[in-house]
Amino acid sequence: MMNYKVIEGGITAAKGFKATGTAAGIKYKDRKDMALVYSEQPCTAAATFTTNVVKAAPVKWDMDVVEHSPYLQAFVVNAGIANACTNEQGMQVCEKTAETAGKLLNIPAKAVAVSSTGVIGMQVPVDKIIAGVEKMVPTLGSTKEDGLTAAQSIMTTDTISKEAAVTFEIGGKTVTMGGMCKGSGMIHPNMCTLLAYVTTDLAISKELLAKALKEDVQETFNMISVDGDTSTNDTLLILANGMAGNPEITTEGPDYEIFKEALHYVNQTQAKKMAGDGEGATALIEAKVLHADTKENAKKIAKSVICSSLTKAAIYGHDSNWGRIMCAMGYAGAQFDPEKVDLYYEGNGHKMMVCHGGAMTDYSEEEATKTLSASEVTLVIDMNAGDATATAWGCDLTYDYVKINADYRS
Amino acid sequence: MMNYKVIEGGITAAKGFKATGTAAGIKYKDRKDMALVYSEQPCTAAATFTTNVVKAAPVKWDMDVVEHSPYLQAFVVNAGIANACTNEQGMQVCEKTAETAGKLLNIPAKAVAVSSTGVIGMQVPVDKIIAGVEKMVPTLGSTKEDGLTAAQSIMTTDTISKEAAVTFEIGGKTVTMGGMCKGSGMIHPNMCTLLAYVTTDLAISKELLAKALKEDVQETFNMISVDGDTSTNDTLLILANGMAGNPEITTEGPDYEIFKEALHYVNQTQAKKMAGDGEGATALIEAKVLHADTKENAKKIAKSVICSSLTKAAIYGHDSNWGRIMCAMGYAGAQFDPEKVDLYYEGNGHKMMVCHGGAMTDYSEEEATKTLSASEVTLVIDMNAGDATATAWGCDLTYDYVKINADYRS
Repeated sequence: MMNYKVIEGGITAAKGFKATGTAAGIKYKDRKDMALVYSEQPCTAAATFTTNVVKAAPVKWDMDVVEHSPYLQAFVVNAGIANACTNEQGMQVCEKTAETAGKLLNIPAKAVAVSSTGVIGMQVPVDKIIAGVEKMVPTLGSTKEDGLTAAQSIMTTDTISKEAAVTFEIGGKTVTMGGMCKGSGMIHPNMCTLLAYVTTDLAISKELLAKALKEDVQETFNMISVDGDTSTNDTLLILANGMAGNPEITTEGPDYEIFKEALHYVNQTQAKKMAGDGEGATALIEAKVLHADTKENAKKIAKSVICSSLTKAAIYGHDSNWGRIMCAMGYAGAQFDPEKVDLYYEGNGHKMMVCHGGAMTDYSEEEATKTLSASEVTLVIDMNAGDATATAWGCDLTYDYVKINADYRS
Repeated sequence: MMNYKVIEGGITAAKGFKATGTAAGIKYKDRKDMALVYSEQPCTAAATFTTNVVKAAPVKWDMDVVEHSPYLQAFVVNAGIANACTNEQGMQVCEKTAETAGKLLNIPAKAVAVSSTGVIGMQVPVDKIIAGVEKMVPTLGSTKEDGLTAAQSIMTTDTISKEAAVTFEIGGKTVTMGGMCKGSGMIHPNMCTLLAYVTTDLAISKELLAKALKEDVQETFNMISVDGDTSTNDTLLILANGMAGNPEITTEGPDYEIFKEALHYVNQTQAKKMAGDGEGATALIEAKVLHADTKENAKKIAKSVICSSLTKAAIYGHDSNWGRIMCAMGYAGAQFDPEKVDLYYEGNGHKMMVCHGGAMTDYSEEEATKTLSASEVTLVIDMNAGDATATAWGCDLTYDYVKINADYRS
């Protein structure tokens, strides 16, 4: 039984959160490219960031404010330029952005997080950013449409905006949690360009908010990959403003578990939306590893399969080249007995076994092609070796991926 | 000064080696798909194999004979079907192949190595393999053309055959070394489908032959990548028959160093040919890391850059998106200071700096596009941190890579 209820909405679903977006002309013409989210009350904050050694300026800014500021109350996002490899000038852009937003919202600059996504190496036109913030502040709103506007404004090569929201009960109070995210290329386990935000009116201690986020990201955002490139800008930020009025969660226990379950739904839903909207993708690929000897091996194998260019290209061609799945499992860095492995395809309502005990079954190629033509293809990998499971998500590799990335800057 | 001389030829260049090829109809129609190489004298052998947990049957066969047979004297290769994920039936194919060749060549079956490359998971038609061996034995020859026939017969998605040969002096005798290889997709550091063979008439102990090969492969074949997929079949085999008449190399010293230098040339030349002929590739990409703090970090960074799908796609589009290079460096798993890094492009005789101290220089986009349009593009990455260097080779990511791999089995 689920302890949460899925609802419509996104970043403005929870009490007290307002959002907006605008076309600031930072890089794109006549297209929304900046978003602002604001909470009426100060928020407990937690975040995870890219593991890339080359960290964008806004990542450095956010690492500082999430760790050292007593609370956060707003964040500003721009799409088009990543503000990465911009050195001191890039840091100044972050400061100016936060200062401008803080002044207009009457909150400290250090209560404002900033994020950027787009081309690496270009300097951000700070005057356009400031004008954008000035334009956005008066248009903040708390409707579903305002949330959607924000979600649309942070897109780059994304083809659809991505939101999720749930409600759940804590101490007799209804708590709401919503999120928005963007990400399509440069997506890889260990955080991606991947900007994801979750807002909730839950009251919870900073320590437990951070713990829940850190744990859940291992099973959700760190289990997706589009192209194996871990971005310089990845950020997942959660803000909790306590306005639901629940007794604050300060210890692990049933309430904390309910919150974690809801958080997992929001994160997993957003992560899958990113994988399915991978650059040029025509299908979401799910790799589900069953009966592995250890959880760690299950995760390695699931990730390796969804990262394999050859497997991804085969699925784009609806070609039942299951040997490539075995090959990707084999170089995952996990030991296993290939002659115990069973493989199944699931898609379009079919489930079929293509490999039993490490060798080909007598399956129908026609049925396989049909199954692999689904817009969501699941590769079930039964290791027959233990009790551990793991799931990872990716997408197929298409001509359009190459096209998008050969022409990206133009 | 080089201690070797580059000559024309390949697998038959060294004294006593004969080769041939044939169209055995294993999977392709009317196309050469089997090769046989034979030495008049027994050979000292050494090899390196895929690190993939899923090892093809011929890899298992070869691991056994290279380790346990007193000598090798021939090898048989088939293209079209990989004989991987074929369990016991696959092992029987290897045995039958070696038995047939051994009987006809009057050598022990265990003196015959076998290799396969192609689709994983299909069973190999053993009758066609046997017929192919029977057809090939009478056509063995020692000319350049015979070597070329063998090199052509092991191709799959390769667009060109790949050979290299050198001569060098050891103890007053002229020693010759030649090689052939194939490989285009499923190519990744840690050995690739990648079949590569080197033959030499050098006299050398088995121990030193193995040592030299193991060391050199780290700097050559393990530094190339086409698509990040490490194959189930990778094999690099070297055979030395001693027919040059040099005093046998049994200790490290000047003679051993001369041999290593020649081996390095042959391996590097063949490795670069593979990278440049990567599936769908229009350009060879060389990533040259200079002044890194450690050799290990230099190698990690060089490999990470040539493996980055986004960098590869940008180079296909001749797009100077140097931030993607910085990004790939950042997730390589090596610590460094991004604000010390200088980046240069080299190609078509130009060399230009695009990033200085981690930020963009005032370079000409037009000149960058021109430089990146070369058929061999070098990315020079100066870490300004120490004395270590490393070079890796890859290729651009193109529509044709996707096309080839979406349709591969059809």
